[in-house]
Amino acid sequence: MTFSGTRIERLEVHDVRFPTATAGDGSDSINRADYSACYVELHTDGGPTGTGFTFTGGRGTEIVASAVKAFAHLVEGKSIEEIFANPVEFSRSIVQEPQIRWLGPEKGATHMAVGAIVNAVWDLRAKLEGKPMWRLLAEMDSAELAAQIDYRHIEDELTPAEAEAILDEGRTGYEDRLKVLQADGFPAYTTSVGWLGYSDEKVRALTEQAVADGWTAAKMKVGSPDVADDVRRAGIIRDVLGPDRLLMMDANQIWSVPEAIENMKHLAAFDPYWIEEPTHPDDILGHARIAKAVNPIRVATGEVAANRVIFKQLLQAEAIRVCQIDACRVGGIPEVLATLLMAAKRGVEVCPHSGGVGLCEYVQHLGMFEYLRIGKTLEGRMIEYVDHLHEHYTDPVTVVDGRYRLPTQPGYSVTLKDESIAEFSFPNGPAWNA
Amino acid sequence: MTFSGTRIERLEVHDVRFPTATAGDGSDSINRADYSACYVELHTDGGPTGTGFTFTGGRGTEIVASAVKAFAHLVEGKSIEEIFANPVEFSRSIVQEPQIRWLGPEKGATHMAVGAIVNAVWDLRAKLEGKPMWRLLAEMDSAELAAQIDYRHIEDELTPAEAEAILDEGRTGYEDRLKVLQADGFPAYTTSVGWLGYSDEKVRALTEQAVADGWTAAKMKVGSPDVADDVRRAGIIRDVLGPDRLLMMDANQIWSVPEAIENMKHLAAFDPYWIEEPTHPDDILGHARIAKAVNPIRVATGEVAANRVIFKQLLQAEAIRVCQIDACRVGGIPEVLATLLMAAKRGVEVCPHSGGVGLCEYVQHLGMFEYLRIGKTLEGRMIEYVDHLHEHYTDPVTVVDGRYRLPTQPGYSVTLKDESIAEFSFPNGPAWNA
Repeated sequence: MTFSGTRIERLEVHDVRFPTATAGDGSDSINRADYSACYVELHTDGGPTGTGFTFTGGRGTEIVASAVKAFAHLVEGKSIEEIFANPVEFSRSIVQEPQIRWLGPEKGATHMAVGAIVNAVWDLRAKLEGKPMWRLLAEMDSAELAAQIDYRHIEDELTPAEAEAILDEGRTGYEDRLKVLQADGFPAYTTSVGWLGYSDEKVRALTEQAVADGWTAAKMKVGSPDVADDVRRAGIIRDVLGPDRLLMMDANQIWSVPEAIENMKHLAAFDPYWIEEPTHPDDILGHARIAKAVNPIRVATGEVAANRVIFKQLLQAEAIRVCQIDACRVGGIPEVLATLLMAAKRGVEVCPHSGGVGLCEYVQHLGMFEYLRIGKTLEGRMIEYVDHLHEHYTDPVTVVDGRYRLPTQPGYSVTLKDESIAEFSFPNGPAWNA
Repeated sequence: MTFSGTRIERLEVHDVRFPTATAGDGSDSINRADYSACYVELHTDGGPTGTGFTFTGGRGTEIVASAVKAFAHLVEGKSIEEIFANPVEFSRSIVQEPQIRWLGPEKGATHMAVGAIVNAVWDLRAKLEGKPMWRLLAEMDSAELAAQIDYRHIEDELTPAEAEAILDEGRTGYEDRLKVLQADGFPAYTTSVGWLGYSDEKVRALTEQAVADGWTAAKMKVGSPDVADDVRRAGIIRDVLGPDRLLMMDANQIWSVPEAIENMKHLAAFDPYWIEEPTHPDDILGHARIAKAVNPIRVATGEVAANRVIFKQLLQAEAIRVCQIDACRVGGIPEVLATLLMAAKRGVEVCPHSGGVGLCEYVQHLGMFEYLRIGKTLEGRMIEYVDHLHEHYTDPVTVVDGRYRLPTQPGYSVTLKDESIAEFSFPNGPAWNA
């Protein structure tokens, strides 16, 4: 492996915000946000620019940007060879920075900053190797891949040898699975039909449109102050979907544990495939109680699970049957990899979190890699899809007939167009000074 | 209750850093920090200034400061009457700010910023009422106190009625307990004897000094790369302490779950009273396993527990026997109160986390209030003490013969001297430009 000595000369961070809050898109029981990116560029000495970002909600992007800046000196001046010669040491140099780790450890704004930076490093590597991220990961040597992970605090659940064994087994039938993706793409589902901010009429019309567009799985938001409103909207959506299409529900953390159990009794009539984020994301024991109570409805969570230790426990407690990794909430590719392997060991389905801005571009690679090299099945696999803001990316997702197509350009697909950065930079971009 | 209409006009935040890292004080298995405060002043229209802070580790203080600034508009312009007329609504307006909560929720830099702000609001109220914080809390009506708590996501463990009942019971014998504090003060222990950065000779000398100074409980850091080093140092300290004084051990999160269990087998010979932070602070199930394995040695944790939902689970899983609340890690007084009440319900001992800078000043009030009104016993109660940086406060702690004396000045005791703010402000203070 050679990267021609490419060295990271300068980290640049952009606060890019899209004014989505006023449009009412993306409203749920908790969030009303301007979809935003704390966007990182790693400029090199003549090589490509590595790009990564963390999804944020408008105000607050500057907090993550402040964290990225505090870490910049740990990546500037480093060569890609150096970083990948000892990837855990590199990750720890940021995650365990002795004066900053107190703000976590491994959670919140600082850990999201780590995710943006580490992903940008991986994007740079993928561009140097001329491979889309899914292919870089799927073709990598098992030992090298397993060596990316920091096993500290998860070794009671996953050892390096176990990780390597899973990845080795993932070579069996690889070419066949790749042909499936090349021919059919990867399953997706739509979250565009049932936001809380939409009227019943709009929900019905959007669900009808989704069915017409070929979607076989759709997700609605629940968690209205009165569960009767959720029940009514679930009735509309299920009516349009018919009995065979999947309906997922997402409570966005609003319920207490007893409320989740009680409310799902009312919503069970509409045959939900999963209930997502039924309660506080830190409540592992609560999720486990809910999972037992709502069985056979699946419990799904993960988009705000702070780190691999939280995922470890969700799996150990049998609290989730669907693992919804996010690409940039945790410390980037290596920590996602740890979670994918732990989920595989437990036989838990992986359905990455997406939507927002740029998340579809990110997680398509993770879902595809998981299928090709770890889980080896499309059973229960779907990637969330929202048709929103893709036009700002140089390599946007392609979704046809409800399926993601394989990305072909080198990198992690999250490079923003220069003109989009300029237009939506906060607070000085023209979009914020109309 | 009247506060003469006092209104918060302006929030000011200071990045105050003390250059402790180079001195080697405060070194442990993970942290090497410049003790710092993200310090908040709430300037009012003619009333006193409310002050609060979050403890930080040097670099990174600017990240919390950025979060404080992002929240400032939610407190500026509000009167103390307004805030306390609906305290949960006020807390939620910050904690659940719809564009910022994505960076948590309720964890990391943003939640620490909430802690600094909410504590400053409470400091302002205590100053307006002319009471030290312990007295303000201990004398407050049970219903009003119970109404400070946001029960969302903990109501499966603690209801408002249960909270109020515990606080009501806390009135019984109150005057007697107050007399005990007035006469004898509150028990403390010292953490100054056994930092990892110290030589064996220094450890022996400091332990001898601690015994001579009247300390009956001392804490050492463990988690050296080779457990033999911990064993050797434990031997020195136990030798000096003799069999009757308490020796606590603190691993600062370094071990995996199996390592913690294994290493404590070696250290059990020195009769540790508790093992603190044996593994990753998010690992509730791991703490529960360790607690079972090391019994009768107590497991203690809490200084970086992100919020009341983490504490709820640590208690539900019987993972801790010592609850080490921090004053400014979580969302200030109301969230600490929730944790104290949950601990009381489970019969778990409360020993607040302290040290750093300003933490002794903060937590003395919490320990005393817990004794007076919630736990009603000094059994197993001790507050950490480090004789460090107290000279920068206008109302520093008084510790005599290993016991904290009751604070008497109004407020939360964390107001920095103006000259200390000026001297140690980063990066422009003289201390950083020598």
